[in-house]
Amino acid sequence: MTALADEVARLLDTAARAARDAARVLATAPRPQRDEALMQAAAALRARADVVLAANAEDLAAAPDLSAAFRDRLALTPARVEAMACAVEEVAALPDPVGRVLAEWTRPNGLVIRRVAQPLGVIGMIYESRPNVGADAASLCLKAGSAVILRGGKESLRSAAAIHGCMVAGLRAAGLPEAAVQVAPTADRAFVAAMLRAAGLIDLIIPRGGKGLVQRVQEEARVPVLAHAEGLCHTYIHAAADPAMARSILANAKMRRTGVCGATETLLIDAAIAPGLLPLLVADLRALGCDFRAEDRARAILPDLPAATEADFATEWLDSILSVKVVDGVDAALDHIARFGSEHTEAIITQDDAVAADFLARLSSAVGIHNASTQFCDGGEFGFGAEIGIATGRLHARGPVGPEQLCTFRYQVMGTGQTRP
Amino acid sequence: MTALADEVARLLDTAARAARDAARVLATAPRPQRDEALMQAAAALRARADVVLAANAEDLAAAPDLSAAFRDRLALTPARVEAMACAVEEVAALPDPVGRVLAEWTRPNGLVIRRVAQPLGVIGMIYESRPNVGADAASLCLKAGSAVILRGGKESLRSAAAIHGCMVAGLRAAGLPEAAVQVAPTADRAFVAAMLRAAGLIDLIIPRGGKGLVQRVQEEARVPVLAHAEGLCHTYIHAAADPAMARSILANAKMRRTGVCGATETLLIDAAIAPGLLPLLVADLRALGCDFRAEDRARAILPDLPAATEADFATEWLDSILSVKVVDGVDAALDHIARFGSEHTEAIITQDDAVAADFLARLSSAVGIHNASTQFCDGGEFGFGAEIGIATGRLHARGPVGPEQLCTFRYQVMGTGQTRP
Repeated sequence: MTALADEVARLLDTAARAARDAARVLATAPRPQRDEALMQAAAALRARADVVLAANAEDLAAAPDLSAAFRDRLALTPARVEAMACAVEEVAALPDPVGRVLAEWTRPNGLVIRRVAQPLGVIGMIYESRPNVGADAASLCLKAGSAVILRGGKESLRSAAAIHGCMVAGLRAAGLPEAAVQVAPTADRAFVAAMLRAAGLIDLIIPRGGKGLVQRVQEEARVPVLAHAEGLCHTYIHAAADPAMARSILANAKMRRTGVCGATETLLIDAAIAPGLLPLLVADLRALGCDFRAEDRARAILPDLPAATEADFATEWLDSILSVKVVDGVDAALDHIARFGSEHTEAIITQDDAVAADFLARLSSAVGIHNASTQFCDGGEFGFGAEIGIATGRLHARGPVGPEQLCTFRYQVMGTGQTRP
Repeated sequence: MTALADEVARLLDTAARAARDAARVLATAPRPQRDEALMQAAAALRARADVVLAANAEDLAAAPDLSAAFRDRLALTPARVEAMACAVEEVAALPDPVGRVLAEWTRPNGLVIRRVAQPLGVIGMIYESRPNVGADAASLCLKAGSAVILRGGKESLRSAAAIHGCMVAGLRAAGLPEAAVQVAPTADRAFVAAMLRAAGLIDLIIPRGGKGLVQRVQEEARVPVLAHAEGLCHTYIHAAADPAMARSILANAKMRRTGVCGATETLLIDAAIAPGLLPLLVADLRALGCDFRAEDRARAILPDLPAATEADFATEWLDSILSVKVVDGVDAALDHIARFGSEHTEAIITQDDAVAADFLARLSSAVGIHNASTQFCDGGEFGFGAEIGIATGRLHARGPVGPEQLCTFRYQVMGTGQTRP
């Protein structure tokens, strides 16, 4: 290795080992102590708002050429710092996910076996230049009894450091090890690569950001990854849909916020109702500024719709664009979703509960929704209080990942001297 | 890529895509159909026992230089084939892990959210030349609604093919796709490498075999892996242990079977009781043919014990050898386990329930046991009916992995037209 690579590897090793030691303390720290750290961190965010805002102003000044959207994600205001502090307090108020008895049973030989929730250990959080993500992730990991190493975007290092200072102040005030929440000690991209290879030191990597970032992480990581690369979500309007409900749900699913992963990207509509309903849906969405990419059977109904290529149906627009396809029933809808979907969130709109149950039973996506907006795929909306991200993999956690699924479990077996025959 | 590599990649792609299609059918196949396939497979194992035994005899004849232990694992007998058939029937009789409602709640806006168990999809099973492992793994995956690609050791290919024929006969008789259970179409090691890289096609890799095999898989895999590289299990005898109980449990934990991953490899004994109890424990184990590696404080009590090096405490003996260390209380025991353990299974022997509870609460191993043998870490002993392996990672599953943890879950959200504010 080069001297630089050696140095980065040493930095990661030092940080991760300190995090592991801190995680061992956190794992058995009582709930009040972890929650106290969060309340004190929130207080520090308020008390040091000026410090955080000044650091953020430096970040913004140092990168004058950023896009308006990028600057908006990076920029903090007094209101946003206050919102960050409130979010940390809300996490503190959530039920304790650690130590829950998930199951308990007794064996014929008298052994009592208990499955108990426990912290994951050390989590590596890799995200873009959005300062609030660092505060959210740190508070959720702390709530779940895990240590975290935060690596935010390089344009937000000063903001991240200032926010980190507040989290550490909270840990210190609660008598918990400061190494429980760390920021990457170097902006070198090699540190991220080292995090991804730190199997045995880091238990879980959570990347949050664009598809490119997430896919890079998924390809390089040796450590397990919880993430979603994209949310190519479908809303399927079945022949037995209530037209008014279909119109209000689709408008919300597509246009409430077009940039979120739970936004609907493709409309699948049954041929039986398309002639009457599709024009109304298109008119609703056009009025909201939405454009379309439609395949032939849809354009046979509305010839003025732009033609869709096959690639369009594989595109997560994250914008005011909707792919449109006319299908013949549930089987065709499920086949399209299996081929183009991302196993994130799909919805069916129908008044026929048997059809809805069949659709949901045959859908393999993390979240299947009947008669509601795909944009409900969110930890807050699910009642988790907060989410650290959304997972579309098959292992451990799927859908919104809240404090409970930031935990793992272990077995406790209580005997009275049993030996195995 | 070379022509050969191309060919192997093509074979993997074909097998995995066929498995995915089969998995989609399995995922919604009703329980009776999956169980019927298992019962018919068991019947086929009995009806074709002669074919299976002949194939196994060819495998044995083709590899005359194998060690006795290796040959014993590879060799089948009429009794072993019958046991295999019974094991498949026992899996069929287990409760259905698919479709269980794991949780259900209602949101203030009326949305009903349900977490439902669903099959993982396609599982890649990589194991050594133990024919029964193929039958066990296939039946557990089928029970859990997942397709499986089996890649057994190269010395057992004929046996594996004959057993596979019986599983396929069961699938055919039950009207399920034959591609639901496949064996690797080539013995080329490159096929294993292709399986490990098949993210998106294979959902989970389960390696079963020696530490070398498992570590190679863990290092190469791009697909999530459930496994344990080793079981370096500890039995800690606390000062308040019942001496008679400690003697019977330790003898069982070390010597019942020395080659299993749940066998105790290291004895930790409190200084307070070591002078009186350690000589009795050593005498018991010596009578069973056990040898020792002891550190100085233990040798101060029994000078004739061979001296232990630090490396000995990091060694999974899988043999009639016990590492011995005298410790000062729970903290010292936990520190030793944190340093040398494999997060598999550890036991504490004590009559002090408060101490036991503290030990179990601070232990991060997959399985912690109070007053019983570490050899109880087993899917059958846990009441899972069977196990496909034991996991020591932090994600998804830990400890014995039975049908329930061969499943993932998804959310089903039932609405009445809700849109997100």
